[in-house]
Amino acid sequence: MASHPLDDFYAVIPAGGIGSRLWPLSRAEAPKFLHDLTGSGQTLLRDTWDRLEPLTGRDRIAVVTGRAHRAAVERELPGIADKNVILESEPRDSAAAIGLAAAILVRREPDVVIGSFAADHVIRGTNTFAFAVQQAVAVAREGYICTIGIQPSEASIGFGYIKKADELDVEGAPEAALVERFVEKPDLATAQAYFADRAYLWNAGMFITRADVLLAEIEANEPELHAGLMELAEAWDDRDRRGPVVDRVWPTIKKIAIDYAVAEPAADKGRLAVIPGHFDWDDVGDFASLAKLNSHGGKGELAILGSTARVLADSSSGIVVSQTSRVISLIGVHDIVVVDTPDALLVTTSDNAQRVKGVVDALKLTGRNDVL
Amino acid sequence: MASHPLDDFYAVIPAGGIGSRLWPLSRAEAPKFLHDLTGSGQTLLRDTWDRLEPLTGRDRIAVVTGRAHRAAVERELPGIADKNVILESEPRDSAAAIGLAAAILVRREPDVVIGSFAADHVIRGTNTFAFAVQQAVAVAREGYICTIGIQPSEASIGFGYIKKADELDVEGAPEAALVERFVEKPDLATAQAYFADRAYLWNAGMFITRADVLLAEIEANEPELHAGLMELAEAWDDRDRRGPVVDRVWPTIKKIAIDYAVAEPAADKGRLAVIPGHFDWDDVGDFASLAKLNSHGGKGELAILGSTARVLADSSSGIVVSQTSRVISLIGVHDIVVVDTPDALLVTTSDNAQRVKGVVDALKLTGRNDVL
Repeated sequence: MASHPLDDFYAVIPAGGIGSRLWPLSRAEAPKFLHDLTGSGQTLLRDTWDRLEPLTGRDRIAVVTGRAHRAAVERELPGIADKNVILESEPRDSAAAIGLAAAILVRREPDVVIGSFAADHVIRGTNTFAFAVQQAVAVAREGYICTIGIQPSEASIGFGYIKKADELDVEGAPEAALVERFVEKPDLATAQAYFADRAYLWNAGMFITRADVLLAEIEANEPELHAGLMELAEAWDDRDRRGPVVDRVWPTIKKIAIDYAVAEPAADKGRLAVIPGHFDWDDVGDFASLAKLNSHGGKGELAILGSTARVLADSSSGIVVSQTSRVISLIGVHDIVVVDTPDALLVTTSDNAQRVKGVVDALKLTGRNDVL
Repeated sequence: MASHPLDDFYAVIPAGGIGSRLWPLSRAEAPKFLHDLTGSGQTLLRDTWDRLEPLTGRDRIAVVTGRAHRAAVERELPGIADKNVILESEPRDSAAAIGLAAAILVRREPDVVIGSFAADHVIRGTNTFAFAVQQAVAVAREGYICTIGIQPSEASIGFGYIKKADELDVEGAPEAALVERFVEKPDLATAQAYFADRAYLWNAGMFITRADVLLAEIEANEPELHAGLMELAEAWDDRDRRGPVVDRVWPTIKKIAIDYAVAEPAADKGRLAVIPGHFDWDDVGDFASLAKLNSHGGKGELAILGSTARVLADSSSGIVVSQTSRVISLIGVHDIVVVDTPDALLVTTSDNAQRVKGVVDALKLTGRNDVL
């Protein structure tokens, strides 16, 4: 690392999404990033911080989050500087969250390279992760927007893919390549073909780029969004002006994912690079992946999550998530998902894990917001 | 009914068993007979009382129960006379419970005919039930021990069977027959043969007999048990003597089911009669039968039990029993059994319903008596 100093690097952690597919564990008051989903003893947000801090130092990690989660974020990250907590009035999707951070940081530091890393993903392999980030920073300094694409460990149909194109010749980034295109979640046959062809990487939503390059790309594709973000940033560090400007501008900010506002157009122009990530990564998108993550890959195992869990299982597999001290007994249920919280209980199977979001929608429609 | 006055008839309700296969709903502090398992709005014990009271009057129904359940029984049955609550120091199985009631009642009323009816079975068809009891009383007056065997509605492998022999010629009991023998729970092929042959009835554990005939049968087969019961009964109605006699004699009382101590030996001697019961009956032995009982027979339905239940189900079948106000969400789970209580949760399937008792045993072994 001595040969790749990251003095110009700033990490940005968007901590926004609730993670509805993990209801009733994740919910508005306790979104996914505030849970320990690996049994590590700490939240995913804290895990993310701990992974980044050796690369940036504690003063160069910004978190973009909602006002409702400010206290929780500061409790989880006692080392975070006040100026690095960027509060959104309301969620406006990833282009706004990361773009705002870029616009604020570039005013403080014109040459800054930022890297955005979701607050609620799971990564194992700290050194390999760090090496990928170092390479990505080297590529970003050359004016590319650089993503880290995960080298697949199986033919997953649960993730989008990034297809690598030609290698890029950047010092300090031996694995850098251009991105040919993004691909939506494939069917199984396609996923198997992708897995056999090592040019396809999982899109993990990590973007490393000079802040000014990112903003130029937003300006080219979404000029109104860019103008709004610049106006917000210009007033941000002025205690008196921020409030009124936010109140006026925030409601006009367009909701759009960074993939569409930045990454895909940049790929089309040959300005998007990728570093393959050779570490274990999961976005823990639903209880099926949570079960897999906590069962060491074994299909017939029962994963148990929750420090107070009292589970008595007989011939059962799947996952139990317990947030209570109730005795939970399972008999002869396979690939089951049981999520036990004080006010809501979910019973489903791994195969139905993607349908959990539908329950959340139904609860909203039927007015049972007390458990959302 | 006017032509068959039942003035000499006394109902006895043994209210003892916990119903371990219905854990965590049924448990030591809240045994099966204290639950509403049909959505009727009242407990099975109360349903039993309400079925018998028109036949006997409120002053001629005795309940044999444990000391721990005295208050609950008196709360459920506010009409019960003090002398009709027969308290067991400790459970000693059905021959002791019914035999003690017989021994106490025969001293009060030498010609009494008693009928024992479990506190925790479900019966639908009050008039048909009453007609069967009237016939059984008529048969009992002739000196037979008479059972009511349920005419099967399907080829069940969950119940024992009674095989009818020759018809008996008793006035007021047109359907009376002798019992040839008892049969243990059969395999499916045998159950199908029994179902095709209308001579096989389900053993529902109902016995109607003169008390003195019952006691003579116990004396013939289990003389020590008989002696103990007579000693208890002799002191029972004497406030000063009952306590010391119970303390001395109760621990010596043999644990044996009335089937073995009375019914099977009586059948061998041609002294056991049977009246076919043409009403719906279920002993609700496990959650599979509870699900069936509450789903109107439909296999793809989801039965929901619990006055505070808040269930949101998507493509799911089976049964949810809720004793909490938690939201319970099921997605894509079939023939599932979910029992949600404040301190324990069970998740299993109908096919595994018989294994619930094993959980209770395991909880005992592992010292988790707090939820038993």
